[in-house]
Amino acid sequence: MANSRFEYVKQFEHDKYLLPNTWIVIRIDGRGFSKLCAKYGFEKPNDRRAVDLMNAAAKAVVTELPDITIAYGVSDEYSFVLHKSCTLFERRSSKLITTISSTFTAYYVHLWSSYFPDTPLSSPLPSFDGRAVCYPSVQNLRDYMSWRQVDCHINNLYNTTFWSLIQLGGMEAKDAEKFLAVSAHPSRKSPKLIGMQPTLSADKNEILFSKFKINYNNEPEVFRKGTVVFRDYELVEPAGQRVADAVDNLAEPVQQSKTQEETDKKRRAKARVVVDHLDIIKDDFWDRRPWLLSNKPGKVPKQT
Amino acid sequence: MANSRFEYVKQFEHDKYLLPNTWIVIRIDGRGFSKLCAKYGFEKPNDRRAVDLMNAAAKAVVTELPDITIAYGVSDEYSFVLHKSCTLFERRSSKLITTISSTFTAYYVHLWSSYFPDTPLSSPLPSFDGRAVCYPSVQNLRDYMSWRQVDCHINNLYNTTFWSLIQLGGMEAKDAEKFLAVSAHPSRKSPKLIGMQPTLSADKNEILFSKFKINYNNEPEVFRKGTVVFRDYELVEPAGQRVADAVDNLAEPVQQSKTQEETDKKRRAKARVVVDHLDIIKDDFWDRRPWLLSNKPGKVPKQT
Amino acid sequence: MANSRFEYVKQFEHDKYLLPNTWIVIRIDGRGFSKLCAKYGFEKPNDRRAVDLMNAAAKAVVTELPDITIAYGVSDEYSFVLHKSCTLFERRSSKLITTISSTFTAYYVHLWSSYFPDTPLSSPLPSFDGRAVCYPSVQNLRDYMSWRQVDCHINNLYNTTFWSLIQLGGMEAKDAEKFLAVSAHPSRKSPKLIGMQPTLSADKNEILFSKFKINYNNEPEVFRKGTVVFRDYELVEPAGQRVADAVDNLAEPVQQSKTQEETDKKRRAKARVVVDHLDIIKDDFWDRRPWLLSNKPGKVPKQT
Amino acid sequence: MANSRFEYVKQFEHDKYLLPNTWIVIRIDGRGFSKLCAKYGFEKPNDRRAVDLMNAAAKAVVTELPDITIAYGVSDEYSFVLHKSCTLFERRSSKLITTISSTFTAYYVHLWSSYFPDTPLSSPLPSFDGRAVCYPSVQNLRDYMSWRQVDCHINNLYNTTFWSLIQLGGMEAKDAEKFLAVSAHPSRKSPKLIGMQPTLSADKNEILFSKFKINYNNEPEVFRKGTVVFRDYELVEPAGQRVADAVDNLAEPVQQSKTQEETDKKRRAKARVVVDHLDIIKDDFWDRRPWLLSNKPGKVPKQT
Repeated sequence: MANSRFEYVKQFEHDKYLLPNTWIVIRIDGRGFSKLCAKYGFEKPNDRRAVDLMNAAAKAVVTELPDITIAYGVSDEYSFVLHKSCTLFERRSSKLITTISSTFTAYYVHLWSSYFPDTPLSSPLPSFDGRAVCYPSVQNLRDYMSWRQVDCHINNLYNTTFWSLIQLGGMEAKDAEKFLAVSAHPSRKSPKLIGMQPTLSADKNEILFSKFKINYNNEPEVFRKGTVVFRDYELVEPAGQRVADAVDNLAEPVQQSKTQEETDKKRRAKARVVVDHLDIIKDDFWDRRPWLLSNKPGKVPKQT
Repeated sequence: MANSRFEYVKQFEHDKYLLPNTWIVIRIDGRGFSKLCAKYGFEKPNDRRAVDLMNAAAKAVVTELPDITIAYGVSDEYSFVLHKSCTLFERRSSKLITTISSTFTAYYVHLWSSYFPDTPLSSPLPSFDGRAVCYPSVQNLRDYMSWRQVDCHINNLYNTTFWSLIQLGGMEAKDAEKFLAVSAHPSRKSPKLIGMQPTLSADKNEILFSKFKINYNNEPEVFRKGTVVFRDYELVEPAGQRVADAVDNLAEPVQQSKTQEETDKKRRAKARVVVDHLDIIKDDFWDRRPWLLSNKPGKVPKQT
Repeated sequence: MANSRFEYVKQFEHDKYLLPNTWIVIRIDGRGFSKLCAKYGFEKPNDRRAVDLMNAAAKAVVTELPDITIAYGVSDEYSFVLHKSCTLFERRSSKLITTISSTFTAYYVHLWSSYFPDTPLSSPLPSFDGRAVCYPSVQNLRDYMSWRQVDCHINNLYNTTFWSLIQLGGMEAKDAEKFLAVSAHPSRKSPKLIGMQPTLSADKNEILFSKFKINYNNEPEVFRKGTVVFRDYELVEPAGQRVADAVDNLAEPVQQSKTQEETDKKRRAKARVVVDHLDIIKDDFWDRRPWLLSNKPGKVPKQT
Repeated sequence: MANSRFEYVKQFEHDKYLLPNTWIVIRIDGRGFSKLCAKYGFEKPNDRRAVDLMNAAAKAVVTELPDITIAYGVSDEYSFVLHKSCTLFERRSSKLITTISSTFTAYYVHLWSSYFPDTPLSSPLPSFDGRAVCYPSVQNLRDYMSWRQVDCHINNLYNTTFWSLIQLGGMEAKDAEKFLAVSAHPSRKSPKLIGMQPTLSADKNEILFSKFKINYNNEPEVFRKGTVVFRDYELVEPAGQRVADAVDNLAEPVQQSKTQEETDKKRRAKARVVVDHLDIIKDDFWDRRPWLLSNKPGKVPKQT
């Protein structure tokens, strides 16, 4: 029963449903964060308060949406992973990406004053765009996560060296850029360098150490590895490829009894959402936390 | 040049580009706002502070994104219209809907304390999902806008009557629902009523007046008509269908000289973004504001 | 009621619905037709039998699917236009493009022996791929049609000159290519020329006339203009932009009485499907045949 | 370099790329085949010539497109499976579905006279629509194939009984329908029965045997099991779930040496394309033919 003759316009609306049985990654990115960094005087190459704020917002999002199994963040971006059996919002792309972008933004703005108590926000406010990508296999998903962590490493090493040359070495930004362009591959985050042909693939670690006595491996892990957020349970003994195989073999969402569903839900609610800086490229991270791939909550550890 | 062997995962990402030369409407909706209303004690049937906050956030979004030509809001939803010649973000759906949802959310959370100074926000924070719909012709766009305003009217008349029966008439919610179900058509906003067969299509205006001496037409326009937000210029003499025809005839974004573009940009920046409660169903609204359809800024009125 | 536990796989299927109120163009293209030309010894630059076969297949498709208002073909491609109010197959993209590709192929193969009685078909058989594009306004649609006809002109002029140089001038293909590359812009159909910088934008008409006494304008219209297929009614006096405006103003499929629908259907069935070679870029073609844009059948001319 | 000012219309065209690393199933369906059956007097419940023609066309399609690993057909439908590593046409949906629909149609029309020598085709010609669906895991793919084969069984058992009641039992169609409606579940192919509540889930096998002494299991396999078409190599000893696991673990198309690619291509070309009627639901079929899932050609058997 139409309320009015205008209601035909609803026919122009068509949802995009993400392919079932695939991992959904929703990546959000800060809009115009270079300007924002300058406006609020973020420290270079990394501002700990800004990173902590990103992580606090991500933790709130993961806590609020139990469908998210793991999130990984670096710089002004965060990737949220929904299990391949997830049916949240019937897997409608628009609902998923706007809900996560909006919820993240809400916490980022709300928590700002806790991390920047002396720097009130003003227009234009920080905001985040987002997109969804589907990955069919566990390997695809892990490769995606590895891609982001490798990117974190490449960018942070570059930025650490770049800003050392400026802050400790007294170089001009332009000169530091040129200096690094001929000694190392530029990363995707340095679009200005595109077109410059690096003639030497030298060691930025070496520059840092020889010039500034900085051992890159002693830099804080939060900057070198980025941040991973997930529900924590008791670690298990690695069982090799078995979990990944079992998960890849899944064809449709497991039909659970209501009781089992309730038990799972309670366990998830009890689990602590941790914020940590770990190597997510190696198998060990995934092997010892089978719940990340299986979506079956583990054993809640005794909290002290 | 790939940074790592993981970079192949980028191939799984495919953007959806919205059809060129169509009007883009991005509608955002508050998530779980029934709970939120209860949690923060919003007044019924309408909470003026909540509506003003929605409108303030929408005004900020329209101000920040000059590609938006007009916005219309009611209750916890807002529709933002991008001109059919808009090429923002290359018309990528994900970028558009997440940017607008996120920016709106940022202002909503940031401005909350101005409208609810005594009611601090707490988890879960308010958030908004969003979607994009394309409309090919001016008529389709206007019918969309009319659809939303008719919906506003139907819902507000229903809610005003419903809450009068409770607040002034001392009825229980259940009884008021039943009373109205048999006297009027339920709107899409009252899912509980689905299935109830209203046996009488009576006059809610009549109920309001006879029982409570309320003349519905004297209710505030902000509640009866919703809110429209747009850049304001000097009103013009209506020229009938000509503007709509000219706009429908447009085949591709008008190629303007850089000078013209700069002039337009400056005019848009100078224009006041107004927040008003007008009838957007009748021709008059559109005829006297040709810039809304043509996207050519009008004459900036002298401000006093 | 599922027939079997396997039926969940149906959930992986999602149709794409083409935006309502837009013109749908379905363009089909011969697959590997360069090889096919060689295999069956098509004449160069144009084989009349092959063109006639394409046109016969297109005529059969237009006759069989009354939703097609007009079709335009050149070389091994054909574009079929569905009116913007068309609701065939609920505008599902897959159904539309496969039905038209398949139906065209069926007639092409079936009619082959009428046009090539001495050259039986053999594997691999001719086949056609297809795609759908939506155009929101009459101007967009006409610009699409014009684009194809301009392309026809550019390619045919090039090919006529190219093959004259070879067939009449005794040049090698390689030399003719180079000769034209420096004297004229290559068209999109000559990918081999990409990268060659034509240094002179000379006149191929001039080459044809001075070298071979060929007046290009005397070449057959079927090759110079391509082919247009449509239902024919009595021509009308041009009414200028009015029809296009009226059609652009349409917001949704016109609701007609059953009687009117039946009358229209009968008229369409009576109309002769014509195959002609006309200028479809100029207004005159469209102005005198308003039914092509309005989708309202005209007056059926007396047939002699 | 645009050939003309009309070329902007190309921007309205956007391809849909099917998600990488997923199995692509393209299913084609005869259009209006009930009418076609009547027109050409197909035998009921199955016309062997018509089925053989379908299978011959499918065999030609599989032979012509080596990217197809297996096809399954029943009645007037055929499903073609592309391996999850397939990159044909960059996985563009439109190209894939139209190419397969068109190629199938070409062979169906071309081969018609071999199977129906006394029944020449006439307008409207047979045609086939098509669609693509992606399946992420081996299990999803196998469940899809099983779904079709179960459907074949259900429909054929129903049709065999239905037509026996008519042809051997002398019933009217209407009465046979009612008789079966109360004794067995209707299949998706009998839309007329929707709404009828079968009150007894009786045994059609029993009806066939008791009434007509027909043992359903002695009916021809081509009707009971449908038809499977694939490249044949030497059968291997089943290795259990290992092949499926390995294939599910694949993250991207295997990078092979040119030599290996050439070897594979030659082997595929040498392989016989078989047309058979086998149980594809059980593991055995897949376990003994690992090339179907792995896409690595097996050992070409000595042909006698």
